[in-house]
Amino acid sequence: MTNEPVRSLAPLAGGPAVPQDSYLVGLIGSGIGPSLSPALHEREADRQGLRYVYRLIDIDTLHAGPEAVGDLVRAARDLGFDGLNITHPCKQLVIEHLDALSPGAEALGAVNTVVFQDGRSIGHNTDVTGFAASFARGLPDVPLERVVQLGAGGAGAAVAHAMLTLGAGHITVVDAMPDRSADLAASLNRHFGPGRAATAALDALPRLLADADGVVHATPTGMAAHPGLPFPAGLLRPGLWIAEVVYRPLETELLRTARAVGCPVLDGGGMAVFQAADAFRLFTGREPDATRMLADIAELADVASVRN
Amino acid sequence: MTNEPVRSLAPLAGGPAVPQDSYLVGLIGSGIGPSLSPALHEREADRQGLRYVYRLIDIDTLHAGPEAVGDLVRAARDLGFDGLNITHPCKQLVIEHLDALSPGAEALGAVNTVVFQDGRSIGHNTDVTGFAASFARGLPDVPLERVVQLGAGGAGAAVAHAMLTLGAGHITVVDAMPDRSADLAASLNRHFGPGRAATAALDALPRLLADADGVVHATPTGMAAHPGLPFPAGLLRPGLWIAEVVYRPLETELLRTARAVGCPVLDGGGMAVFQAADAFRLFTGREPDATRMLADIAELADVASVRN
Repeated sequence: MTNEPVRSLAPLAGGPAVPQDSYLVGLIGSGIGPSLSPALHEREADRQGLRYVYRLIDIDTLHAGPEAVGDLVRAARDLGFDGLNITHPCKQLVIEHLDALSPGAEALGAVNTVVFQDGRSIGHNTDVTGFAASFARGLPDVPLERVVQLGAGGAGAAVAHAMLTLGAGHITVVDAMPDRSADLAASLNRHFGPGRAATAALDALPRLLADADGVVHATPTGMAAHPGLPFPAGLLRPGLWIAEVVYRPLETELLRTARAVGCPVLDGGGMAVFQAADAFRLFTGREPDATRMLADIAELADVASVRN
Repeated sequence: MTNEPVRSLAPLAGGPAVPQDSYLVGLIGSGIGPSLSPALHEREADRQGLRYVYRLIDIDTLHAGPEAVGDLVRAARDLGFDGLNITHPCKQLVIEHLDALSPGAEALGAVNTVVFQDGRSIGHNTDVTGFAASFARGLPDVPLERVVQLGAGGAGAAVAHAMLTLGAGHITVVDAMPDRSADLAASLNRHFGPGRAATAALDALPRLLADADGVVHATPTGMAAHPGLPFPAGLLRPGLWIAEVVYRPLETELLRTARAVGCPVLDGGGMAVFQAADAFRLFTGREPDATRMLADIAELADVASVRN
């Protein structure tokens, strides 16, 4: 197993060849009112002196179904948007409406970022590149031979692809819905080679964690609406690294408990920031300052987790 | 005849009740690439510290016909635009797609500004209010009993409505296309009372101008592509006021000649600025500083008239 340099995981440089004087982007999804993306993008744009508007396009507010995403993407292109973020429940549905996909988005079968260039729409996935960048920054030297991942939903699929792209030797996917973990493991083995991924039942966790180098947590447990730990605290031990996807709050009960035990930990804010930073780079062709954006999310996520 | 106070001609206050932190607006029309509206709006927004993006939505670039305006307006509403300007050839066609009209837009039968509020689309016409505001500011004390207007196209219709709203006693409309001037005179008499408007042929201009208080010029003559004077310089005399609609260049041959003769003159920049200022107020609910915007257009129109 080798850790590839993170640089090679960065999405292709996007944005216009000629510098623009304004940028218009948005987010299409369901129930996205509390999204931190507008603030993350607009704050970074302000620091760079860019005129930048980020609009929320909520299909619930529009009384539209997920299948409306195709018409909304075409409309955004026609009205002068530079790009879009796409989130639940449209990340798969949007694909058939795009002109091309980045290799990462194609492998995952999900798009969270669309860039309009010369009238064409290109799909990317910065959840994958964002988690990879966050992991490489926050846990640069941890062993990656045996990884256990909890959660095989949309975020879980993205971070599992990221872990294998980063060079993880083997990943075991555990989900309360066995079909979902089986589908994800099959997709991982198809794209990264046979034998790289497997599934296990929830009750296998004690044995799995005893053997693992680290755990990627990709379920909603730990969010304000889903408090608690995703597995018993007794399964934690010093040296077992824990990478969290939840970022509201930044300090989940899992991270707090793991830190006390002596586990190296990575909070979910990094993934949220780097997926936004990678999208910002694709939209503008300019390099965002992820360090400043990490300070933003520390402030924004705390405020948001109190509110929600 | 009385000059009504300009304040009463201002469009109804628009914009959101709660201050927004960003604004997204655009212009729908044909061949609008050289429009100065993005710069006029964005410069004023910058001075007010507003995040504000103004996008050009050119139906030619989209390979769409004028009838596409309905779909484009609905798409802009759905994607989070706060409002739109509408220009040739869509100012009439857009009306059937709106939820309500301001009285001025309804009287004129043309909309150049659409405001989205609570999911509804309201049509306004700030060409009318903008010309009225410019005239009241630039030629506040001139007599308005007998006005001659050259040009009965879209801009001509708006400024004729503005002149009668300002209290002009009688307006004679002259156009190379007699059907067009007859239609405009009929519309004016319908909305402002019988006997307020008439038409005349081009060869009646010597007699008409000898008797007139002032002239509104609303043909393209004097633009870079249509140089020259719209009527012989010999028809000008000291005291006859001249109000110009052309603003590229700001100093047309007509204005230069009239100024030399001793005519009070009004350039077309004021209409361009006040229609933008009135739209800005409708979009944001904030008061624009028209004096600063007049300085902008002096700079922008000169640069643009060299370019075009």
